[in-house]
Amino acid sequence: MQSTSIPRMLGSTPTPLANAQSPASTRFSLLCSTALRLGEWSARVDTGNTTVVVDDAQAMAPCVNFVTGNANKLREVKAILEPAIEVRSNPLDLDEVQGSIEEVTQSKCRRAADLVNGPVLVEDTSLCFNALSGLPGPYIKWFLSGIGHQGLNNLLAAYTDKSAEAVCTFGYSAGPGHEPILFQGRCSGKIVPPRGPSHFGWDPIFEYEGQTYAEMDGAQKNGISHRARALKKLQEWFRDHAEGPAAAPQ
Amino acid sequence: MQSTSIPRMLGSTPTPLANAQSPASTRFSLLCSTALRLGEWSARVDTGNTTVVVDDAQAMAPCVNFVTGNANKLREVKAILEPAIEVRSNPLDLDEVQGSIEEVTQSKCRRAADLVNGPVLVEDTSLCFNALSGLPGPYIKWFLSGIGHQGLNNLLAAYTDKSAEAVCTFGYSAGPGHEPILFQGRCSGKIVPPRGPSHFGWDPIFEYEGQTYAEMDGAQKNGISHRARALKKLQEWFRDHAEGPAAAPQ
Repeated sequence: MQSTSIPRMLGSTPTPLANAQSPASTRFSLLCSTALRLGEWSARVDTGNTTVVVDDAQAMAPCVNFVTGNANKLREVKAILEPAIEVRSNPLDLDEVQGSIEEVTQSKCRRAADLVNGPVLVEDTSLCFNALSGLPGPYIKWFLSGIGHQGLNNLLAAYTDKSAEAVCTFGYSAGPGHEPILFQGRCSGKIVPPRGPSHFGWDPIFEYEGQTYAEMDGAQKNGISHRARALKKLQEWFRDHAEGPAAAPQ
Repeated sequence: MQSTSIPRMLGSTPTPLANAQSPASTRFSLLCSTALRLGEWSARVDTGNTTVVVDDAQAMAPCVNFVTGNANKLREVKAILEPAIEVRSNPLDLDEVQGSIEEVTQSKCRRAADLVNGPVLVEDTSLCFNALSGLPGPYIKWFLSGIGHQGLNNLLAAYTDKSAEAVCTFGYSAGPGHEPILFQGRCSGKIVPPRGPSHFGWDPIFEYEGQTYAEMDGAQKNGISHRARALKKLQEWFRDHAEGPAAAPQ
């Protein structure tokens, strides 16, 4: 299911991007349509036809439009990125394509950038059963809504291998025409009969080191989860690429 | 998995379209960019800016671009529609969206019409396991390539209900901006360990009345298959809506 054609994929190493791209193209593009409040930063801002150098502590914070209708995800992303990066939510309803995890996120990110006409952040969550070659993977939401927790367990009835990977992939694009950059976090666990509160997706059937996600408190889960790991990479990249005057990548 | 918001869905009755749409919007739009050879037909042709009434036995046959890279499917469609409708193949590589069977086909049809800038026909095949609420459904190709025939059988290991439906959905659009019209054929059977030649998809594991698709000869399969049933509806609709002067639907 994995695409090998993703040139800017963030894998298991924290910040491979710096070596994978030219300096000019790796810089965080501050494409907000409003002015910037940069604190200690200064930055070059591509506003479409004009490039403006912002070097003013009174400017607005750089911002990104996080395309989600999910309040929990928005809260998690805000907690990690703000106040350095202002996170605005945009509940655009975007189709998702079929394909590898990376293709799904890349496609969503490109379409979001086109529609928002500015910098966007999108997220995709997959649940990959190892006995099923990584499936349901990016189709997990259809399987969860169609067959529920017990049905997901049943998919593995023929196998002793109940192992699975939870995968979170963020995609960031500086705007239309800018290639998405992916930030992926993975957490290895196994599929079990549901335990714990069932208010959040497949959390009750994904067990990591003896506890299901649903049985963990927020701090525990955020210490090890696929989403926390992806957000850490995202945070590091934003920190590394939003410093100093930045050329808008193209 | 079924969408209820598909206004022009052809269900189990052969030709509900005639009642579901206004006469003007149901007519087959002869939008080929070349002239028409209509045989005994005459038709109004929308060529973009101009509407031309064609009433000439020497005109070119109406044509449609069938978006497929699959030679077997092209042959089947040509056998049914030609010579009345000229079927041109166009191996456009289109992303498929996630969603219901109908949403997947509608989306593909709209994008194909935009890219071809003319009349298009697209096709989607799903395999729906009843015990899994219709899944894998439109994702069957990923499951077939990921876990194979035995893996597909294994998905049902926890269930005594091995029943499944093979579903073929054609989508036709007269061109950009024209709402796709769907033609769907279904065949009820069950999932079994593979029997028969394995050169065509999941044919060896789909059994209909004691034989797998793979064990049937071409004529047998074409007498009952989901694709043959969909093509019959498509053929009837093209026949009914390509007769007499036709207004290009919009």
